[in-house]
Amino acid sequence: MDAFVMKEVGETGFADKDVPEAGPMDAVIRPTKGLVCTSDVHTLHGAIGERENLTLGHEVVGTVDAVGDNVDEFEAGDRVAVGAITPDWGSLAAQDGHPSQSNQALGGWKYANVKDGTFAEYAHVNEADANMARIPENVTDEEAVYVTDMMSTGFMGAEHAEIPLGGTVAVFAQGPVGLMATKGAVLQGAGRIIAVETVSNRQELARTYGADDIVDFAEGDPVEQIMDLTDGEGVDAAIEALGTSGTFEQCIQVTKAGGTISNVGYHGEGEHVNIPREDWGVGMAEKDIATGLCPGGRLRLQRLLRLLERDRVDPTHMTTHEFTFEEIDEAFQLMESKEDNIIKSLIDFELKPERRYRFHPPRIES
Amino acid sequence: MDAFVMKEVGETGFADKDVPEAGPMDAVIRPTKGLVCTSDVHTLHGAIGERENLTLGHEVVGTVDAVGDNVDEFEAGDRVAVGAITPDWGSLAAQDGHPSQSNQALGGWKYANVKDGTFAEYAHVNEADANMARIPENVTDEEAVYVTDMMSTGFMGAEHAEIPLGGTVAVFAQGPVGLMATKGAVLQGAGRIIAVETVSNRQELARTYGADDIVDFAEGDPVEQIMDLTDGEGVDAAIEALGTSGTFEQCIQVTKAGGTISNVGYHGEGEHVNIPREDWGVGMAEKDIATGLCPGGRLRLQRLLRLLERDRVDPTHMTTHEFTFEEIDEAFQLMESKEDNIIKSLIDFELKPERRYRFHPPRIES
Amino acid sequence: MDAFVMKEVGETGFADKDVPEAGPMDAVIRPTKGLVCTSDVHTLHGAIGERENLTLGHEVVGTVDAVGDNVDEFEAGDRVAVGAITPDWGSLAAQDGHPSQSNQALGGWKYANVKDGTFAEYAHVNEADANMARIPENVTDEEAVYVTDMMSTGFMGAEHAEIPLGGTVAVFAQGPVGLMATKGAVLQGAGRIIAVETVSNRQELARTYGADDIVDFAEGDPVEQIMDLTDGEGVDAAIEALGTSGTFEQCIQVTKAGGTISNVGYHGEGEHVNIPREDWGVGMAEKDIATGLCPGGRLRLQRLLRLLERDRVDPTHMTTHEFTFEEIDEAFQLMESKEDNIIKSLIDFELKPERRYRFHPPRIES
Amino acid sequence: MDAFVMKEVGETGFADKDVPEAGPMDAVIRPTKGLVCTSDVHTLHGAIGERENLTLGHEVVGTVDAVGDNVDEFEAGDRVAVGAITPDWGSLAAQDGHPSQSNQALGGWKYANVKDGTFAEYAHVNEADANMARIPENVTDEEAVYVTDMMSTGFMGAEHAEIPLGGTVAVFAQGPVGLMATKGAVLQGAGRIIAVETVSNRQELARTYGADDIVDFAEGDPVEQIMDLTDGEGVDAAIEALGTSGTFEQCIQVTKAGGTISNVGYHGEGEHVNIPREDWGVGMAEKDIATGLCPGGRLRLQRLLRLLERDRVDPTHMTTHEFTFEEIDEAFQLMESKEDNIIKSLIDFELKPERRYRFHPPRIES
Repeated sequence: MDAFVMKEVGETGFADKDVPEAGPMDAVIRPTKGLVCTSDVHTLHGAIGERENLTLGHEVVGTVDAVGDNVDEFEAGDRVAVGAITPDWGSLAAQDGHPSQSNQALGGWKYANVKDGTFAEYAHVNEADANMARIPENVTDEEAVYVTDMMSTGFMGAEHAEIPLGGTVAVFAQGPVGLMATKGAVLQGAGRIIAVETVSNRQELARTYGADDIVDFAEGDPVEQIMDLTDGEGVDAAIEALGTSGTFEQCIQVTKAGGTISNVGYHGEGEHVNIPREDWGVGMAEKDIATGLCPGGRLRLQRLLRLLERDRVDPTHMTTHEFTFEEIDEAFQLMESKEDNIIKSLIDFELKPERRYRFHPPRIES
Repeated sequence: MDAFVMKEVGETGFADKDVPEAGPMDAVIRPTKGLVCTSDVHTLHGAIGERENLTLGHEVVGTVDAVGDNVDEFEAGDRVAVGAITPDWGSLAAQDGHPSQSNQALGGWKYANVKDGTFAEYAHVNEADANMARIPENVTDEEAVYVTDMMSTGFMGAEHAEIPLGGTVAVFAQGPVGLMATKGAVLQGAGRIIAVETVSNRQELARTYGADDIVDFAEGDPVEQIMDLTDGEGVDAAIEALGTSGTFEQCIQVTKAGGTISNVGYHGEGEHVNIPREDWGVGMAEKDIATGLCPGGRLRLQRLLRLLERDRVDPTHMTTHEFTFEEIDEAFQLMESKEDNIIKSLIDFELKPERRYRFHPPRIES
Repeated sequence: MDAFVMKEVGETGFADKDVPEAGPMDAVIRPTKGLVCTSDVHTLHGAIGERENLTLGHEVVGTVDAVGDNVDEFEAGDRVAVGAITPDWGSLAAQDGHPSQSNQALGGWKYANVKDGTFAEYAHVNEADANMARIPENVTDEEAVYVTDMMSTGFMGAEHAEIPLGGTVAVFAQGPVGLMATKGAVLQGAGRIIAVETVSNRQELARTYGADDIVDFAEGDPVEQIMDLTDGEGVDAAIEALGTSGTFEQCIQVTKAGGTISNVGYHGEGEHVNIPREDWGVGMAEKDIATGLCPGGRLRLQRLLRLLERDRVDPTHMTTHEFTFEEIDEAFQLMESKEDNIIKSLIDFELKPERRYRFHPPRIES
Repeated sequence: MDAFVMKEVGETGFADKDVPEAGPMDAVIRPTKGLVCTSDVHTLHGAIGERENLTLGHEVVGTVDAVGDNVDEFEAGDRVAVGAITPDWGSLAAQDGHPSQSNQALGGWKYANVKDGTFAEYAHVNEADANMARIPENVTDEEAVYVTDMMSTGFMGAEHAEIPLGGTVAVFAQGPVGLMATKGAVLQGAGRIIAVETVSNRQELARTYGADDIVDFAEGDPVEQIMDLTDGEGVDAAIEALGTSGTFEQCIQVTKAGGTISNVGYHGEGEHVNIPREDWGVGMAEKDIATGLCPGGRLRLQRLLRLLERDRVDPTHMTTHEFTFEEIDEAFQLMESKEDNIIKSLIDFELKPERRYRFHPPRIES
C-alpha cells in the first residue's frame, strides 16, 4: 500500500508498505479524511530524533477494514474516528488517571512516533474497542476528524484551566489548538475570553469561536493590554497554546493570584521554560500550572462527537485548504511555510483519480 | 510597650510603641511564646523593601487582652493561637478559595509586612473571630505556636502534592517547613517518603517525622539517587521546601509523568525559576505545579490544634533553642548564621527578669 | 416605610416599619426591581415556622442609599445586585468552602428567614462589600435581578452535577431554577440535555435555554423515556430541580454507575427522601449525590453579571408577569396558584403612582 | 481440581472442576492464602440470585502458574496479590475514572459473581498485567491478602469521606471494612476519629487502628452521643460501614452542613435507603453522599502493598481464625454465625494433609 513517510529527518515521500494486520484486540482502518498537524512538521525536522520511513499522520477518520477476534464494538464497514493518542488502558499511568502518559511520558502518543502513522491507505489501531468511536450519522467525516486531536487538545486546555463559571480567561495564540481552547472556554462557561493573536483571519475565527476581546501583540505588550482590559486585576486563567517560554511567562504575569495557567502548547525549543519569579508570587501566590497531552479513548471521542452531533461547535471553519492524498506533500509544505493563511489542511483519501487543489478562504460566520 | 523592630534594612533593635487598640472586629493579645522564622530574616535584609521601625515576628500564641465590640468568640484571658496569615475573609480572593491572597498576591500576610508584627508586648489581630483559635487545655503554648505557621505551611506542602494513598513522595530540604511537609506526607497516607537533606540533625529529625529514605545531596546528584531508589520510575509527587530554582528543577526531574510538584519554598532570588523543558515532557507530561502561602483562619488553626491535642504530631522536636524576649536579637543572629544546628528558636515572653540561654540538643525520638 | 410582610402564617399585607440603619460593615439599599420566589410562598405557609410581621422577599436589585463607615467598595447612588444569600464570610463554614452554611445549616439564608426580607422601600445588607455587586452599565435591572438567586441557584445545580464535556444530563422540572440548570448545563459543555417537564410554555423555554430533548412525564414514565433515549445507558448526571422524593428517586434511576445526582430542589415535605436501593447499586455504584444552597457573595454576583454583560444568557424570557410594589400581593397569589402560565413575576418598585398589570405571554426565542 | 462452590442458593460443597486456562492477556494462579468475606455469605444466600456450582471466594494471594502470551509483567512462580475487583480497563467506565463499574454497575466484581471465584486449587485472572501485583519480599502472604479487598475497600471509605487534615470523622461499625476505614482515616490525617461499635474485641481493635473515641450504640442513641462529643457541632465526615438504612440515616444526622457521608457498606435489604429530609437540610445543606466499590488494579495493589512493606499498617490483627482449604466450610459457617468473636478467617491453601483449627484470640497491640 502507499504510505506517506518521513524517509529521514527533513525528507518526505511515498513508500510502499505492507498492509498492517490486526492483532486480537486491534483494528485496521482505511482512512477517508485526515488533517495535517504542525507536530508532524516538527517530527519531520527531527524534534523526536531520527526515523526511517516512518509513516506520518495521526488525525484521521475512516472505515473499518478488519478487526481482531476480541474486538466487540466494531465490525468491517463501520465509519470511525481514531484518537490521535491511543493509550494502553491497562497501564499504571492509565489506572492513575493519566492514560496519555501510558508506560512512559507521552506514551499514549504512538502514531508517527513509535509506530507508523495514519497517512496511508490502511492504518493500524491498537486496543480498537477502547481507542476509536463510531461517527454518528449526521456528522460528516470532515467534522469528525477534528475530534481526534484539535478539539480534544484545545478543549483540554480550557478544562485544565479550571475557569470558574463567568470567570475571565486569556488564550495565547489562535492556531487551531488555541481556537479550540477559545471555544472550549465558551463550553466551560467563561464570562470573558481574551484571545491573543496578530494574524487577521485567526483573529476573525477567534471571534467566531467566542472570543470577546482580541489582543494583538503586534500593537504592544500583550501583558499590559490584558491588565488594562481587566482594570489591573488580571484573569482567572490563562491558556498557553503556542509553546514558547515567552508566552508562558506572559501567562503567569496576567493570571491573578489564585488563578490557573493551563499549558497546551508543545515547547519545542530551549533548555528551560521560565517562570518569572516575582510575578509568580515568589512561589506562594497560588498560581498553579497544569499541563496535558491530548486525551484519547472511545469515551472522549464519543463525547466530542456528541457536541458535533448537536451543533454545539463547528470546527470546519478551520479547514482553509483541501488536498488529495496524492497531493499531501503540498499540504506539508504549506503547514511549514504557514503561507496562504493556512490554518488546517484537509486530506481527502477518497479523491484519488484526478488531482485537485481547492483553496478555502477562511469561512467566518457572519 | 517594647517592640522588637527592624529599624531599617539590616538593623534590628527594640522600640517603644503605643499599645495597639482593637477595632470592633479585632483583638489585642499579649504574646506568651513565639518562634523566629527565616522569612523575618529575609525581611530584615530587604527582601520586601525598606521598612522603618516595623515590628518583626508572625508566629505567636498568647493571652487575649482586649476584644472589639463585635467579637463573639473570645474574651480577655483566653489562651489563643494567632495565624501567621490573617486574611480578610470577605475579600474576593477569600470568596474564591484563596484567603491567603486576599486583596492582593500574598495579601493575607500582614504581620511584619504591611503592619506591625507580633514580637512585642502586645499585638493586634484583625478579624479576631476568624483569625485566632482557643488552645485546648492539654496543649502547651510551645506546641501550639507551631500551628501558626510551620505546621500549617509544611502540611499544606503535602496537601497540595496530592499524594495518592500509598504513593511515593520526595521532600526537598528538611528545615522546619520541610520537616513538617515530611510529617504532612505521613498524614496524607504516603507509602514512601524520601527526604533530601545533608545536615545530620535534620536528617535524624526527618526520620523522626516519618521519612523512609534520606538522600544526602552532598553524596551525589539527588535526582540520580531518587531515580535509583525508585527503579527509574520517579515519584508520584515532589515537594520543594527550600526555595531555589535548582531544587525546583530537581523536583520536576524526579516526578513521574502525571505527578505533582508542590512548591512551598520562598523563592527569594533570581529573575526566573526554571522549568527543565524536556523533563517537563515539553509541556505535555501532566506534571502539574502547585504553590501556596500558609493557610490561616480559625478553622485551620482548630484542626491543627486537634492534631496536637490527640498527639498525632509533636512539633517540639524542632525547638533547638530557647530565648527570653529580651534576648530575641541573639535568636535572630542565630537564625541568620544557621550555626549551632539551629532549627527553631522559641521566644519566651514571660521569662523577663533574668536572662536565660538554653541550648537544646535536637531531641530525637528513639 | 412600607414593607410587604408575612403577618403570621398564611397572611400577608403591608406594614409600616422603620428604615433600617447600616452598621459599620453594612449598607441600606432602595430596591428598584424584585422577583417573587416560590420559597417565599413556602415560608408564608409555615415551612420554616411562625413569623410575625416578617418582611418577605430576597431577590432584588436597587440603589445604594447609605453605607457604613467600613464599607470601601460602594457609595450612595451605586446600582447594585444583592445576593439572596448573604453569608458571614469569617464563619467557620465559609472558611471551609461552604459560605451558604455559615454559622448553621442554610445559615447564609437570612432574608425573610432570620431577618427582614427585601420587599420594602429600604433593605439592609450585611457585610456589604462582600455581599453585593455593582451592575454593569449595559445590564438592565430586570436582567440583573436574576443573578441574585435564579441564575446562581440553577447554575449551581449544573456545576455540582460535574457534567463531563460532551456528557449527558437530565434536568428534572423546568421551573425557573430548572430552566437555569438547563442553561447551566449548556455553560458546562453538556453534549446532550434532556429536560423533564409537562407544562408547554416551560417546555418551550427549556428548548430556548438549550434542552435537546423534552421528556413529558404526562406521557409515560420519565425513567423509561430517558433510558430509551440513551439506549439503556442512562445519563452522566441528573439534576433534581423540583424537590420531591419521587423525582429524586428517578434521578438515581436514570444516572449511570459512576455518575452524579445534583439536588437543587427544596424538599419541603415528608420524613424521608428515598434512595432506591438497587438502582443505587446497593450503595456501591459510585452514584454520588451533591446538594447545595444558592451561592452568594460579590465574586459570584460579578461573575454572573459578566455573563449578562456579554449576552451569554438572557434570563428575562422567564419574566411572564410584571407588577408594581403596591400590587405585590397579586404576584404572591399568582405564584401560589401557578395559574396563567406564571414563571416569574417581576416587581417594579419605581412605578408607584398608577396601578399597572401587564401579562407577558412567554417570550420564546424563535 | 478441587473448588469450593455454591452448589445452589444455600448449599456449599466441593466440586471437581477443570483447571482454568489463561487467554493471551490472562494468568492462572495457585492460591496460597485467602480470606472469607461476608459478601460471599450474602451470595450463598441468594443476594445476587441463583447460581449453580459457582466457585466462591475473591480475596486471595498466590503463585503464578501460567500466563498468556501477551502478559509482560509476570511469569510462572511469581508471588502475587490479585484484586477482588478485576476491571476491564479499556471499558468506558474505566476511561471515565470508574473501573469498578466497568461495562455495568459493579461490573468489575467478577469473582464469585459472573465467573468462578478464587477458592480453588487454581484461579483465573483476567488482564493479568493490570489486575495483579507482585508481593514485596518482606511482606507475608497473610499480610498481603488484606490488600485485595479489606484495605482497598476500607481505605476507600476514608478517601471518599474527604476528611480535612485535622478534621473529625465518625465511622459506623467496626467489622473488618469499618476497621480499615478507621485506619484509613488515620492515613488521611483525621484529627479525631469516633468509632461506633458495641462488640468489645472490635472496640479494642478500633482503638488499635486509631479510633480516639468509641461510641457504643447499646448504651444509647449514637447520634446523641456523637453530638455530645462534638459539642453539638457534628463531624466533618461520616463513614457508613455496615449497610443498613438506619446507620445511613445516622451518618447524615451527625454530619455537619458542608460535610460528607461516605458509604462503604453493602446495603442488602429493603426497597429504599432513607435520607432524613430535615437533617439533610431539605436538600440544601451541602451534605454530599459518596459511594464506591473496592478499587482494583495493579497500581492500587502496589500502593497498598507499599504501606505494608513500610509497616504503616498491620492488618493481621484482624485474623482471628485460621483454617485449611479442606476446612473452609467451617470458616463459612463461622462467618455466618458471627460466633467466637470472628473477624476474619484466614484460609491456608498449602496446609493440606492434616486438619487443623487454630483460634486466635484477637491480637491487640498493647
